[in-house]
Amino acid sequence: MMRLLRRLLIGRPLHNFELAREKLPKWKALPIFSSDALSSVGYGPEQVMLALAAPGIVAYGFMLHVSVAILLLLAIVTTSYIQVTRANPGGGGSYAVAKANLGEFPALLAAASLFADYTLTVAVSVSSGTAAIISAFPALVPHEVTIDLAVLFGVLMVANLRGVREASSLFVWPTYAFIFGMLALVAVGAYQAITGAAPLISPQSMQRQFDWLVLFAILRAFANGCSSMTGIEAISNGVKMFRRPAVSNAGRTTMYMSLILAVMFAGIAFLMMHYHVMPQPKVTALSVVAENTFGRSIVYYFIQITTMLVLYLAANTSFNGLPPLLSLLARDGYAPRYLGVRGERLSFSNGIILLSIFAGILIYTFQGNVEHLISLYAIGVFMSFTIAQWGMVVHWRRKRTGRWRVSCAINGTGAVVTAAVVLIIGVAKFSEGAWMVIVFIPATIFVFKKIRSHYNDVAEQLHLPEDELDENGRLRPRQINNKVLVPIATPTSVVVESIAYAKSLSSDVTAVNIVTDEEIGRRVRKRWEKLDPEVELVTIYSSTRLVIQPLLDYIEELEREHNGPDDYITVVIPEFEPQRWWHRLLHNQTGWVLRTRLILKTNVIVVTIPFHLKK
Amino acid sequence: MMRLLRRLLIGRPLHNFELAREKLPKWKALPIFSSDALSSVGYGPEQVMLALAAPGIVAYGFMLHVSVAILLLLAIVTTSYIQVTRANPGGGGSYAVAKANLGEFPALLAAASLFADYTLTVAVSVSSGTAAIISAFPALVPHEVTIDLAVLFGVLMVANLRGVREASSLFVWPTYAFIFGMLALVAVGAYQAITGAAPLISPQSMQRQFDWLVLFAILRAFANGCSSMTGIEAISNGVKMFRRPAVSNAGRTTMYMSLILAVMFAGIAFLMMHYHVMPQPKVTALSVVAENTFGRSIVYYFIQITTMLVLYLAANTSFNGLPPLLSLLARDGYAPRYLGVRGERLSFSNGIILLSIFAGILIYTFQGNVEHLISLYAIGVFMSFTIAQWGMVVHWRRKRTGRWRVSCAINGTGAVVTAAVVLIIGVAKFSEGAWMVIVFIPATIFVFKKIRSHYNDVAEQLHLPEDELDENGRLRPRQINNKVLVPIATPTSVVVESIAYAKSLSSDVTAVNIVTDEEIGRRVRKRWEKLDPEVELVTIYSSTRLVIQPLLDYIEELEREHNGPDDYITVVIPEFEPQRWWHRLLHNQTGWVLRTRLILKTNVIVVTIPFHLKK
Repeated sequence: MMRLLRRLLIGRPLHNFELAREKLPKWKALPIFSSDALSSVGYGPEQVMLALAAPGIVAYGFMLHVSVAILLLLAIVTTSYIQVTRANPGGGGSYAVAKANLGEFPALLAAASLFADYTLTVAVSVSSGTAAIISAFPALVPHEVTIDLAVLFGVLMVANLRGVREASSLFVWPTYAFIFGMLALVAVGAYQAITGAAPLISPQSMQRQFDWLVLFAILRAFANGCSSMTGIEAISNGVKMFRRPAVSNAGRTTMYMSLILAVMFAGIAFLMMHYHVMPQPKVTALSVVAENTFGRSIVYYFIQITTMLVLYLAANTSFNGLPPLLSLLARDGYAPRYLGVRGERLSFSNGIILLSIFAGILIYTFQGNVEHLISLYAIGVFMSFTIAQWGMVVHWRRKRTGRWRVSCAINGTGAVVTAAVVLIIGVAKFSEGAWMVIVFIPATIFVFKKIRSHYNDVAEQLHLPEDELDENGRLRPRQINNKVLVPIATPTSVVVESIAYAKSLSSDVTAVNIVTDEEIGRRVRKRWEKLDPEVELVTIYSSTRLVIQPLLDYIEELEREHNGPDDYITVVIPEFEPQRWWHRLLHNQTGWVLRTRLILKTNVIVVTIPFHLKK
Repeated sequence: MMRLLRRLLIGRPLHNFELAREKLPKWKALPIFSSDALSSVGYGPEQVMLALAAPGIVAYGFMLHVSVAILLLLAIVTTSYIQVTRANPGGGGSYAVAKANLGEFPALLAAASLFADYTLTVAVSVSSGTAAIISAFPALVPHEVTIDLAVLFGVLMVANLRGVREASSLFVWPTYAFIFGMLALVAVGAYQAITGAAPLISPQSMQRQFDWLVLFAILRAFANGCSSMTGIEAISNGVKMFRRPAVSNAGRTTMYMSLILAVMFAGIAFLMMHYHVMPQPKVTALSVVAENTFGRSIVYYFIQITTMLVLYLAANTSFNGLPPLLSLLARDGYAPRYLGVRGERLSFSNGIILLSIFAGILIYTFQGNVEHLISLYAIGVFMSFTIAQWGMVVHWRRKRTGRWRVSCAINGTGAVVTAAVVLIIGVAKFSEGAWMVIVFIPATIFVFKKIRSHYNDVAEQLHLPEDELDENGRLRPRQINNKVLVPIATPTSVVVESIAYAKSLSSDVTAVNIVTDEEIGRRVRKRWEKLDPEVELVTIYSSTRLVIQPLLDYIEELEREHNGPDDYITVVIPEFEPQRWWHRLLHNQTGWVLRTRLILKTNVIVVTIPFHLKK
């Protein structure tokens, strides 16, 4: 039953050789790698506006300045990442760059930041995608979180467990449709704004009344806007999937992506200012802009639906990003081993499930509220940017070939600027959630290191000691003394079977009968002697009516005289396997109790023999 | 740690011979057996009033009539139970009486009714006890359910698991104090009423305006009042604890108890009518009566506190009643076996825990509301009364000695009257909760029968087949063929130890290496051959990266050629026992998974060898 359901949901197991990758042309690589970056205009400009609208109308006029600052930062980050593309055609991202160039701690810092980043990308993108669609269909408002979780677990997790081909054309068309819709929106909106009546925005609301509160709002707006830059690094991690010449193709695609993002961001921000969009509950700013431009026409619905799709696709990119990172960490011993193996469908199933659960917790905790999630978001992104850029600086300085000084300068600038951004976000958004990330990252690094040290300890203990080998490197033969105990109540067919099995294990078998009534003990012994199973019977009278404790005492007593490294005590316990689950309630769980109580002893082994009741 | 806590709470295990009973004089037996019956004046008269006050003031005047009817019923039931005392000096209650005289079905009907009755006694008495104390101390109102559950689990359950001596003087003094307080209340109240000013009750409110709604209210009031009669049977179940002449002493004690109950019930009902007490939230009617009589004096607090104590003691009587009944049922195969054994403290621990859980669920579900619980209550009580009386009729008719015709007539009258009461309660309270009991009782009987038939099935399957014995009744010797498999990854110290253990179990040992990479398989084989553990290594290449499935397939294949009744396959799996709980998350749970997957196979046994990591 479980297996059938699993097959239906996840599909048949795939063969190793089915793991192959096609090489992508630029036109196909662009949408596949850029859905994360581009989709962020679905929430980025709005988040800038929300921060500025917060202290009243006085800061709204600074939107232009903040937008320009973000576009400038985008240019710097893009240039830096084109450098990364050139240097690291094998892929691997910040963790790989840092590990190769900077050492363990920066690598783990990058890994922890990426962990936070990827998880939040899923939470933010799914929540924003749902926000886009409920803006268009307000009847869905009460089901917001339900839709979020259904998309997360029902679509993204299942699809990734099946193993979606990253290169599937599934990802190509929605992204192009989204780009088309956004560019149309910006073009038509701008045309209307320039040729139409006077700007809708009133001069009073454009005022800029500078004070410290406003400065703080501006910094927060900038921090929020930085969330638009997540995903810029995606192409540099996937260089090997490009057609030749891969490096130059990847560099060019990064540039195109960045340009499209810049145009869309600038256009949406301009239209938001033009229409003087203010925060509205359960309606996204992008929806307001689209409605002001096109009315509730078919074009409006096209824009909302493509926005939703591209945001859900953006969430999907994390499913392509985090599980391989976790698998790298697992292979290096920093994460549980089972995160390192591909599942039956060639995807890193355990990592996919882990990511889904973490993102689901975030969505549920923040009830799908993008504004609250954004506060946690950008810091992890820029932390990993900084480390990657710094790693590149070290890389160029080691290499010292070609235009290494120029490259070094570019990446150095990138590192300094992004580090400054980390600081700004950390301060401006500290009380709104950035503190959680600031706590989470060191805690995660601590866990990574603890896991690694546990695996090291285990490896040490698993090492075969020299004294177990002879001079030829062969194992020395050992003589195991195995004492087998069979606790019995009364000689039934099950007991007889257990005794027969026990006698096959060892020549030293003892049956143990714990009785609470001496008379019963005498009767069992009599019957035992008549059956004559050629096994010694020990009768223990329990004056306190406990059954397990006297047995444990007896085992402990045996253990004291039978305690060499080659001495084992094996306890054989028959256990009923009933036909119906509730029948289990009618039988003692002695096997389970004994196993639990004996698990701390060395060289004591509990064997339960399942007896299948036929009715 | 767990054991220490257990010792602290429950005490040291007791020796079998500590199970002894002293014989009780009448003055000590009366309070011990009657707390259940007498304490019911704490809620009985109030419940009559609540039912009559419900349809407006018009039915209130019928309180006198209902009270007289209840006192009459009490007289009949008491007379009947004095007969039971005479016939059944061994104790055992309705279940034993019905089993001996009426057959399986009536016995199970009695058992199910008693189950409902005992559980509800705990829920109602605990809730009423708490109601008495929060009437006196209103600050405790918000903690009502918490107090209920604390008394139930923290005091009653723990005390009974420790094994309270039924005969402890703990039970003697609170009951006498309660009786003293109640009689004083009735005496002083009656004196004041007679000598004092005109009755407080106004003539208008005494009107009796008869219609069908009122008739129904009267029947409900009667049904509610019947709850006062629970516990009348207690003495007849404990005859053997009386000093000689036990039967006549027990009969006389029953009569005294009944008389005291009658006086208290009549007196409280009279005072309630006199003061015209109406329902008040979170204040019991008894508290109102006591306050009207004594003011908030020391006497008032004495009455409230003794009422609380005696009600909690009444709940305790169920702990002396249900667990032994369950143990009788378990010995007859109608309840899980483990309900039949005395625990380490000589109490029937499992029954005590079961009763506490059931009563706790009732209290929590009904939020300690006595009025709602009462609706479920009386039907089980009177059902078991009816069966016991009917059983006595059959008993006398069989015996036909002495004054058997008189006895028969008395018990026959009792049976008919109590059966009529069951009908009245079932109809009058059907929609208010009696339906739950009417559903519960047949469902419980069904479960009893299912359990019995399962144990019968098991006993049949455990029977030693004749063909396993030789002509002298000795077991025929058997030759078990045990094929041992050891799944390995790479030859570590743990694998070497497991192989050594496996070799001690059988001469037919095979190591199985599942690889997802053929190169690794070759490397492991090379190392294996160098170590030369004298065990065949089978390498299985898993093209789908699954590890457990290929192993299961291999086991199934072996099973097909190794499927005689004496053929076993034993799978030996090393399993890490880490030092810290979270380390467990870092290791595969292959042993557990294999055990779960293989448990349905006959003659395949999974042995996990615990390896204790030292750090």
